[in-house]
Amino acid sequence: MAIATRTLKKLVNDPSDLVKESLVGLAAAHGDLLRYDPDDQVVVRADAPVEGKVALVSGGGSGHEPLHGGFVGRGMLDAACPGEVFTSPVPEQMLAATKAVDGGAGVIHLVKNYTGDVMNFKLAAEDAEDEGIEVMSVLIDDDVAVQDSLYTAGRRGVGATVLAEKIAGAAADRGDDVQSVAAIATRVNEQARSFGVALSSCTPPAAGKPIFDLPEGEMEVGIGIHGEPGRRREPLASGSEIAALLVDAVVSDLSPEGGTKVLPFVNGMGGTPQIELYLLYGEVQAKLREAGLEPVRRLVGSYITSLEMAGASLTLLALDDELTELWDAPVRTPALRWGA
Amino acid sequence: MAIATRTLKKLVNDPSDLVKESLVGLAAAHGDLLRYDPDDQVVVRADAPVEGKVALVSGGGSGHEPLHGGFVGRGMLDAACPGEVFTSPVPEQMLAATKAVDGGAGVIHLVKNYTGDVMNFKLAAEDAEDEGIEVMSVLIDDDVAVQDSLYTAGRRGVGATVLAEKIAGAAADRGDDVQSVAAIATRVNEQARSFGVALSSCTPPAAGKPIFDLPEGEMEVGIGIHGEPGRRREPLASGSEIAALLVDAVVSDLSPEGGTKVLPFVNGMGGTPQIELYLLYGEVQAKLREAGLEPVRRLVGSYITSLEMAGASLTLLALDDELTELWDAPVRTPALRWGA
Repeated sequence: MAIATRTLKKLVNDPSDLVKESLVGLAAAHGDLLRYDPDDQVVVRADAPVEGKVALVSGGGSGHEPLHGGFVGRGMLDAACPGEVFTSPVPEQMLAATKAVDGGAGVIHLVKNYTGDVMNFKLAAEDAEDEGIEVMSVLIDDDVAVQDSLYTAGRRGVGATVLAEKIAGAAADRGDDVQSVAAIATRVNEQARSFGVALSSCTPPAAGKPIFDLPEGEMEVGIGIHGEPGRRREPLASGSEIAALLVDAVVSDLSPEGGTKVLPFVNGMGGTPQIELYLLYGEVQAKLREAGLEPVRRLVGSYITSLEMAGASLTLLALDDELTELWDAPVRTPALRWGA
Repeated sequence: MAIATRTLKKLVNDPSDLVKESLVGLAAAHGDLLRYDPDDQVVVRADAPVEGKVALVSGGGSGHEPLHGGFVGRGMLDAACPGEVFTSPVPEQMLAATKAVDGGAGVIHLVKNYTGDVMNFKLAAEDAEDEGIEVMSVLIDDDVAVQDSLYTAGRRGVGATVLAEKIAGAAADRGDDVQSVAAIATRVNEQARSFGVALSSCTPPAAGKPIFDLPEGEMEVGIGIHGEPGRRREPLASGSEIAALLVDAVVSDLSPEGGTKVLPFVNGMGGTPQIELYLLYGEVQAKLREAGLEPVRRLVGSYITSLEMAGASLTLLALDDELTELWDAPVRTPALRWGA
């Protein structure tokens, strides 16, 4: 029997069915918010299309849950197109999602900067335009770790994606037009920086072995969400030292003025428990204050993950009044919910 | 330098400070909802005591986050007293929490059935009564895996605790008296059953090594949240088989009538990512329907954890109209939030 030789310590059936079966479960649990179309492999807001509202579509490889399917609902994404684990979705998925949510006011593609995602979303946008749907694309490239990487030309798109989906989703919800919503998503990306550290590797189910090796006593500084190499390997540091390293990396790159109001987003990579994330958040908030910044909003949790990788990333967003108001606006999705 | 020899793959400083430092971070992130008193090591609702409202206090060893500190806020717990990792809090903490939240309408202790917790909450309740505070205790013992265990006489208290905190918290919020709130928490416990499976062990930071060994290719069926042995070791099974095993264990023990409305709570143990939890939820929902039950509410996520353990548990609650209404009532805590 195959089972007797199973060694993959995961709640999966055939690894090649994981993405689809997980999406079935997501829709089963949250049918009030979203539906799953297995033919096109897209997750769509339950009441889409919303007539006259700008629609937001995002997507990318799976393995980063709740990103993106867990952010479909009211006040955030209208649709998500999930690829296989760590693999870009195909243009057909993106086009299907775009058509499913088009309410006549234009559709925005929020695209994390990975070569496959960028290329496929570009093709999908062209096809959608051919069908008479206005599409604007916003590229997210907030990871300061490295310029160019395993799957990316330029900087990688990571945690700012979550913030852009929430904030642009709120702008679409209040009735902004497609140019305005795109401008707000762009502003979030421009005012955000991210940096992450991995304490362990992770195992894509189909591969069945860790995506990279991390020797005992070391951590990967500047990790990518698909296990792409960062800036360097270092001996494992304390939570306080890691907080300092994260804060230094994002603050030195963003260079906000003293007194800037900020939203720190402390994100777990999937295998790091909350007890550690909150320790890290406490350290990060203290260090941001030492740096003269004013944390007035925050997000703590595992929202853009790398399967069961241990580690964390910090995304720092410089707020202004409008972004703060949009952040506070009601949201109702499987993974983020308040005010509704 | 100590750092060069660090091997603990955790975001911690001195492991003995983890609990306190994590609570500092929790309060830093959620100061609108709760405050942390480091002298008594208790987490208290920001506006406590609420005059005339029955107050709910829970607590237990840390390492199960967000339980309990992440459930302090409006419509759930008034206070949590966190012990060290996997260690009962002391009666002084419980007494301090009880006094901090007493609004004159009585205080309920929600106690997970572990010998240390039961004994210490009993002492604290007696001390509180001596100070003129009416205290009622509700014992949670929903884990059907084993009768008596490493730290428990009788059944262990696990996932039903989360549901009881939410539902009893809503009853307190709507103005029920202390007997009524205690009766509702008791009803949740009586109508709930849980069962869990571990795919990996976990490492308490102070110990620095896994709490138990789980050989390659095996899983622990009926795991306790402190790594207590379950019913048996088995070869690793598929997600579908594990779902069947979880559903069978709780349904056979609860024996609900056909057509019963139920709330399945699929809980991650800390190191299992969402993509797997939703696959499991889909399987669980389908099998509950096959068993003639009607899942009308649900909870999916890592809410009562064992540090970074991989695995999941299922808690099944048989609903009635009142429990459903209380489940739906607004809640606003760091880890559970809706309608507010």
